[in-house]
Amino acid sequence: MLLSEPEGFYLYDTTLRDGSQQEGIQLSVADKLRVVDLLDGLGVPFVEGGWPGANAKDTQFFAAAREMRLRQAQLVAFGATRKAGSKASKDPLLEALVGAGTEWVCIVAKAHPGHVTSALKTSLDENLAMVADSVEWLVNQGKQVIVDAEHYFDSFLGDEGYARSVAKTAAEAGASWVVLCDTNGGMLPTQISDVVSQTLTIGVPLGIHCHNDTGCALANSLAAIDAGALMAQGTMNGYGERTGNLDLVPLIGDLHLKYGWSLLTAEQLGSLTHVSNAIADIAGQPRQPRQPYVGASAFAHKAGLHASALKVDENLYQHIAPASVGNQMRMLISDASGKANVEMKARELGIDVSGEGVVSDIVETVKSREAAGYSYEAADASFELLSADVAGRLRKPFEVTRWRAVTMGDADVDSSEAQITLMVGGERIVRVGEGNGPLDALADGLRQGLVASFPTVENYELVDYRVRILDTGRGTDATVRVLIDTIDEASHRWTTVGVGTNVVSASWEALADAYLYGLVKGYGAAN
Amino acid sequence: MLLSEPEGFYLYDTTLRDGSQQEGIQLSVADKLRVVDLLDGLGVPFVEGGWPGANAKDTQFFAAAREMRLRQAQLVAFGATRKAGSKASKDPLLEALVGAGTEWVCIVAKAHPGHVTSALKTSLDENLAMVADSVEWLVNQGKQVIVDAEHYFDSFLGDEGYARSVAKTAAEAGASWVVLCDTNGGMLPTQISDVVSQTLTIGVPLGIHCHNDTGCALANSLAAIDAGALMAQGTMNGYGERTGNLDLVPLIGDLHLKYGWSLLTAEQLGSLTHVSNAIADIAGQPRQPRQPYVGASAFAHKAGLHASALKVDENLYQHIAPASVGNQMRMLISDASGKANVEMKARELGIDVSGEGVVSDIVETVKSREAAGYSYEAADASFELLSADVAGRLRKPFEVTRWRAVTMGDADVDSSEAQITLMVGGERIVRVGEGNGPLDALADGLRQGLVASFPTVENYELVDYRVRILDTGRGTDATVRVLIDTIDEASHRWTTVGVGTNVVSASWEALADAYLYGLVKGYGAAN
Repeated sequence: MLLSEPEGFYLYDTTLRDGSQQEGIQLSVADKLRVVDLLDGLGVPFVEGGWPGANAKDTQFFAAAREMRLRQAQLVAFGATRKAGSKASKDPLLEALVGAGTEWVCIVAKAHPGHVTSALKTSLDENLAMVADSVEWLVNQGKQVIVDAEHYFDSFLGDEGYARSVAKTAAEAGASWVVLCDTNGGMLPTQISDVVSQTLTIGVPLGIHCHNDTGCALANSLAAIDAGALMAQGTMNGYGERTGNLDLVPLIGDLHLKYGWSLLTAEQLGSLTHVSNAIADIAGQPRQPRQPYVGASAFAHKAGLHASALKVDENLYQHIAPASVGNQMRMLISDASGKANVEMKARELGIDVSGEGVVSDIVETVKSREAAGYSYEAADASFELLSADVAGRLRKPFEVTRWRAVTMGDADVDSSEAQITLMVGGERIVRVGEGNGPLDALADGLRQGLVASFPTVENYELVDYRVRILDTGRGTDATVRVLIDTIDEASHRWTTVGVGTNVVSASWEALADAYLYGLVKGYGAAN
Repeated sequence: MLLSEPEGFYLYDTTLRDGSQQEGIQLSVADKLRVVDLLDGLGVPFVEGGWPGANAKDTQFFAAAREMRLRQAQLVAFGATRKAGSKASKDPLLEALVGAGTEWVCIVAKAHPGHVTSALKTSLDENLAMVADSVEWLVNQGKQVIVDAEHYFDSFLGDEGYARSVAKTAAEAGASWVVLCDTNGGMLPTQISDVVSQTLTIGVPLGIHCHNDTGCALANSLAAIDAGALMAQGTMNGYGERTGNLDLVPLIGDLHLKYGWSLLTAEQLGSLTHVSNAIADIAGQPRQPRQPYVGASAFAHKAGLHASALKVDENLYQHIAPASVGNQMRMLISDASGKANVEMKARELGIDVSGEGVVSDIVETVKSREAAGYSYEAADASFELLSADVAGRLRKPFEVTRWRAVTMGDADVDSSEAQITLMVGGERIVRVGEGNGPLDALADGLRQGLVASFPTVENYELVDYRVRILDTGRGTDATVRVLIDTIDEASHRWTTVGVGTNVVSASWEALADAYLYGLVKGYGAAN
């Protein structure tokens, strides 16, 4: 039995503070404001914005954020307890925290004796006084205070008494919440569960803050919630230092779709995939295809066994309806796929595969080409061209009869040029292209050759180019697979594939297919 | 309290079967054999190799794998129960399973009534007969049989009786193990724990097989183990369909370093990072920086953290010692760490970097080149050439003054040729090379130009060629990094790097450096 929804449970996002500790993430003030807007729209009640005073950018951020009209989110400013041996009222960082102008503040307090003596270099009693003073002073300034008890679990498992007295001190000084932190991320669910249960009696509600160093940040957070924690701190997509923080995205999925809670509206839940992707894009991080609920592969099926069952009933191999989180089911075409995959994929793409033996012929063609190194999993456009060709329905608007690409260099510079011979409507066309590499030069030549007959090709843009060596260990004879993504101005996007032992030929194959597909579909015209 | 180590607990790897269902993974027979060797070295007791009969490549794989000398791993062939309404002895797939020649086999059995009636389209009783017959027949063929009970948890939570009778039937028919599968990956740890506990009495040991659709594959597997499961099926790096399978890498970390078990030797555990990375490379998957225990960021600390404090007590900041899993602590790049890195690397490679300002100059050069996309982590040979050049100690045995590579094709064939102009000892040499792609042709031309003066170049072989696009999303203007591995007959192996927006130029840079390095080191002579 999973826990039914308690009164007053809260999600707390710290993407903008703890999440941006991740290697490779650097957010501008404008980036941060966009993330706040996305989280507010998603329905996250607490959004931590940064550490004012410690960081000039975060001070600017809070000044700008005060101008935002938030629908429901509470912005939280982050800080720490006062310095040892001074007064809370004289602490410039606590001053800056109040100056952020938020109703809510969160301060980190040391809860581990070793850290108090080694890192703060002060006494255990002074640390307790720092917690009490800081909370009291902030409450007197009219703030609602959340206390993050750092290293709480490590501390509790070593010296239960001191950890508990830090939490109790915070509660008695007027904190609204005490959040227990697994700062080093080394805990497992049963340990989290035990410690949370034994801390429930301090008089204020508890929160949980997990890192993923054992691979259990999510399960640890669920264990804490099962034990009575009423707030979960985490980040979007699990961003954070080292292995990252709790990923709020699957937490939201699990609490809604497994526990049956209703923290967000159905519409907000349906935006989860979009919000996750948008924040990945803002953070400059690759989207994670395997991310639970929202990943591009989360509902992608490859095995022929699964595909034939899915044709009968989609629920047979899916744990939830993908649309509930704004995601979708995808069929993958591979050498492991059978007729059912091809039929479902054709239906998904709107390709006509009726006709005696057409599906079997497509399966055979896909299998032999996949054996040669092609991959149609990502290259829907090449699959569609192949299917139309096998079905006898492909009319090619142009044919390339010859091509050559030359790359040359000396000690200082290099350059590429290409020559393309095309047949378009019975006419022979020869063009020379130039570019920054052979593919660029070939694309230039092909565009020149086509533009008189098909002016829309001017609107095709190659936006992604991926090369993978398939049989490493074969040296310069290795087979290479090239994937090319193309877009037009009307936001069509299509992927084509080319394969061969010659990287230029394989790139050219994918490129020529990209133009062929765009023309067959009539892409490139203004919408 | 975490569970102490039970007698007879086993890791079971299915990277080669369930893992290769992941979008983007396609393993050749040679790839699969390399993975088996790595897993055997790591100390994984069961390695599932594929589905013979269902897949021609897997049949070939088992034929080749029989020739391997494994240290301790048991290879397992995978299959399914016999078809409905037929006989086990007449089932071609069961025949192929036996034909794989392994001592152990694993078959999947339907355990969910809905799947039996909708997908198999047979009766619940016939499904039980299929389980019993198939297991009995395989046992009579001398096999040790593992039964994967598909959708066991969904089934048990709906109709406890049928799920249990499938497991019991398998046990009574002679299966050595029954593995309970969360096939859709929709479970949470408390559910897994309940169901495993209630299935313990069937008479044979239980295994667990989890997928990560709720983000809890690892915690679910730990919950099953805590409840008494004695085998965990998973994949390296969590590869698998949709959100992936249980990642064995953090499972190994958690069981060793948190539970205190000793499944692997300390040396094997110390190879965990290497094995994880090597399998990612073979699978053509990006390494995951945030992967627990083995990720490049797993022990990376932000710059503000004091190195002196880490020296006092690393345990304050890290949940385990990174070296125990073959990983390392990393401080974020700073000028100080840059110098220290270069000095340590130079010492490791035996490069002389004495001389006023040489190390600083190397640091500056490395920084500007890494900013441009170079990576010297893997390319020790290019780093050594760069260091020698900066130190003024590089004497080049040849200089390339001009080069060109032409690739051409028509509807049927493609070919490449290259022209190289070299200066060797004051003499100008021009040669034309041919090959299977521009790099192959350039290599041919360069070899021809050098062989008269340096006959040892005949013994250089390019054995690996890797291309990575650094800035995806830039289309044909993307920056490309090329790594080339070269060997000679005396088993020297060296790696060089080239970078640029032109894939041919970047390849050429790495290739020319490979020859230059070999000649500078005097490689290629018979030992």
